[in-house]
Amino acid sequence: MTWVDDANAPLLTDLYQLRMLQAYFAERIEASATFDLYVRRLPPTRNFLLACGLDDALRFLEQLRFSPQAIARLASLGPFPGSFLERLSTLRFTGDVFAVPEGTPVFAGEPILEIVAPLPEAQLVETFITNQIHLQTVLASKAARIVAAAGSRPVVDFGLRRTHGADAGMKSARAFFIAGVAATSNVLAGQVYGIPVAGTMAHSYVQAHDDELAAFRSFIELHPDSVVLVDTYDTLGGVRKLVTLSHQLAERFRVSAIRLDSGDLATLSRAARRELDANGLRSVKIFASGGLDEHSIAELLRCGAPIDAFGVGTRMGVSEDAPALDMVYKLVEYDGRGRTKLSPEKEVLPGRKQVFRPLRNGTASGDVIAGAEEAIDGRPMLVPVMRGGRRLERGTLQAARERANRDIAELPASCRSLEAADPPYPTAVSEFLRERQARSITAASS
Amino acid sequence: MTWVDDANAPLLTDLYQLRMLQAYFAERIEASATFDLYVRRLPPTRNFLLACGLDDALRFLEQLRFSPQAIARLASLGPFPGSFLERLSTLRFTGDVFAVPEGTPVFAGEPILEIVAPLPEAQLVETFITNQIHLQTVLASKAARIVAAAGSRPVVDFGLRRTHGADAGMKSARAFFIAGVAATSNVLAGQVYGIPVAGTMAHSYVQAHDDELAAFRSFIELHPDSVVLVDTYDTLGGVRKLVTLSHQLAERFRVSAIRLDSGDLATLSRAARRELDANGLRSVKIFASGGLDEHSIAELLRCGAPIDAFGVGTRMGVSEDAPALDMVYKLVEYDGRGRTKLSPEKEVLPGRKQVFRPLRNGTASGDVIAGAEEAIDGRPMLVPVMRGGRRLERGTLQAARERANRDIAELPASCRSLEAADPPYPTAVSEFLRERQARSITAASS
Repeated sequence: MTWVDDANAPLLTDLYQLRMLQAYFAERIEASATFDLYVRRLPPTRNFLLACGLDDALRFLEQLRFSPQAIARLASLGPFPGSFLERLSTLRFTGDVFAVPEGTPVFAGEPILEIVAPLPEAQLVETFITNQIHLQTVLASKAARIVAAAGSRPVVDFGLRRTHGADAGMKSARAFFIAGVAATSNVLAGQVYGIPVAGTMAHSYVQAHDDELAAFRSFIELHPDSVVLVDTYDTLGGVRKLVTLSHQLAERFRVSAIRLDSGDLATLSRAARRELDANGLRSVKIFASGGLDEHSIAELLRCGAPIDAFGVGTRMGVSEDAPALDMVYKLVEYDGRGRTKLSPEKEVLPGRKQVFRPLRNGTASGDVIAGAEEAIDGRPMLVPVMRGGRRLERGTLQAARERANRDIAELPASCRSLEAADPPYPTAVSEFLRERQARSITAASS
Repeated sequence: MTWVDDANAPLLTDLYQLRMLQAYFAERIEASATFDLYVRRLPPTRNFLLACGLDDALRFLEQLRFSPQAIARLASLGPFPGSFLERLSTLRFTGDVFAVPEGTPVFAGEPILEIVAPLPEAQLVETFITNQIHLQTVLASKAARIVAAAGSRPVVDFGLRRTHGADAGMKSARAFFIAGVAATSNVLAGQVYGIPVAGTMAHSYVQAHDDELAAFRSFIELHPDSVVLVDTYDTLGGVRKLVTLSHQLAERFRVSAIRLDSGDLATLSRAARRELDANGLRSVKIFASGGLDEHSIAELLRCGAPIDAFGVGTRMGVSEDAPALDMVYKLVEYDGRGRTKLSPEKEVLPGRKQVFRPLRNGTASGDVIAGAEEAIDGRPMLVPVMRGGRRLERGTLQAARERANRDIAELPASCRSLEAADPPYPTAVSEFLRERQARSITAASS
């Protein structure tokens, strides 16, 4: 198996990028180009997206080089002329990048990132950059909804086993943390990103013992403040065994929570709470998991289920209701001239841009997508993050998480709701930009 | 950025696996355990699943070791006793594995893989094994539907930019190829797996030129047998420019196909076909892409659209309608005794198994999930693939692709249809296995 790493990541691209590069080099089409990365339409179940993945994108740009190993791989694929491979081997990314910081809510049509670089460089990086920002934006946007549904109760990421592969396993934990998830079960991600790591026990642990009480006793002997899984055979029976154990252990009993992973969580959590409280175990919390998403969490809390924390796996880990975004990377300017495209329903706004987000009484009141040279009311959302191929100041994960929390709170309540915002959050295109588009269309059609 | 690689992959696991391992070591619970990996329920839009990902799972098992680097990472996370870390550093996977070969159609409840190993080893590997087999089975199962819809027309994988991360980008190309996809746009996957790589041009290439005709001319000068993208400004206008170019180049014109990427593909493909044919370009094929899936492909072909090949991206790349499966890894036997679990709607069939698939007139007539010791009519689907931690014979990608093609053709027509098979393909549990389950339940409940 070949893992993707820094040495071969430049080949994690579409063949047409290399075909176009060959042509650009041959034709000396190497003037400065601007590409916008944005989402054309929001999925029906998203009122906003949470931009995420910039750090990995910038790292890729900064590290980009075709190693001798990568060149050898390419050569083995076939028909690339030696002069092209040689040219590739000296290629570096030398451009500028403007982007919204990670953890920023964005809307349809708003650039998440703009790349300004010689056309071949800017073209080549499309596939990898899109792959990384798409993934993390998909996942952070889903997690933001789940965190909102859980309110003040912590959400723990249990998604690793069903995220799409190893890279998604890592990046999901990162994106979820930015979106407000409290901890992850993923050991490697926790270590690499400095995210709190959490874990309880599996049913197999209970099953491997001859009886449930013995399993509980052994586990908490080693891990006294564990979360104990009580539903392997019969949930309330499991709770009662834990109560028995609490009597046996007396003050040595320090179990922090029980976990319910199946059945009617509302009914079971109420019955478990009563049983625990009646036996002096008020401090033992109730942790729920098992196929949860924002809707089931909201419903549990609406009906008053006494659940203190949620473990969420698959539905967050693959963003089940919206696993992909219509995210595109489009040429908007080349050699100083705005570029557009007339494919049906896929319009492109030409030229470099800025997005302005005005606040009214502390609430975002509607974004304006404008030309980069415009000055319009509101906070400018795109900031320079790379110049001449070198990263500028690098934000921390914690800062991105705080930004997400703050910026989401600024959105109108309808936007933060789980239901479709009606009307959707307003975004407008500035008159200046519309005029530039009209001029480009005239030029392209002539 | 830390890429996942052989050295840190063992840490790509859930914390609870390590917590349980600590307990198992402390309690000396190290007898032989059997775990089954299977899907509890099929998504409503899948009549069968195509098992995939075994090769990566076995490679992981064979390579499994906690390197000093991995141990250091773990130690930095906190409360692991030195004796546990030391024990981990010598841990290897020494078990046996039985599995259905890659490219085998499977159904709900049927083990895709069975691991028989000392409990701590078998438990530890759950997360990574599930992550890899889940991903590739999700994607191969989706691709099989798209390949079926396209019939004899080739399907090309364009999904890389929206697959979930780098690992999914690689493994998707592999899974799609097994399911019958003809080629991938992914350069690295093509090189690593030996899959044909295909690529055309992007709209940005056309836009970067001052006019479309010049763009076409330059591109095919370098890549004479290209697929030319004609819809940047106006699809039929683009076709006419290509016709003009064919007149200019005469016998040097060798363009293989045009690509349509937007608009009403049925209408546009018919009009383009007429235009090409009327100008002596019968040999120029029509390649369609743009948000396609099995349903839109079937509809295009049903209404007779003259399309010769399909490029499919996002909807296949994330398996949009079913991005996750209810795939689980369950303890079914420990220390020679069948194990079960009574959590509501999550029953577990105890003991080692075999799945038998009888054929009637060359068509699979219904599977039986049985005990491993049973001999029942039909082909046994699970075969030994690893013994004592060493892989047995290793299948090629091509063999898996051929198996998928052959085994899917054996399924009843209703099962191969895009509509929900009604009734679904029959799977039964053998009487022997039901009796074993009843005995285990009695034992667990007592």
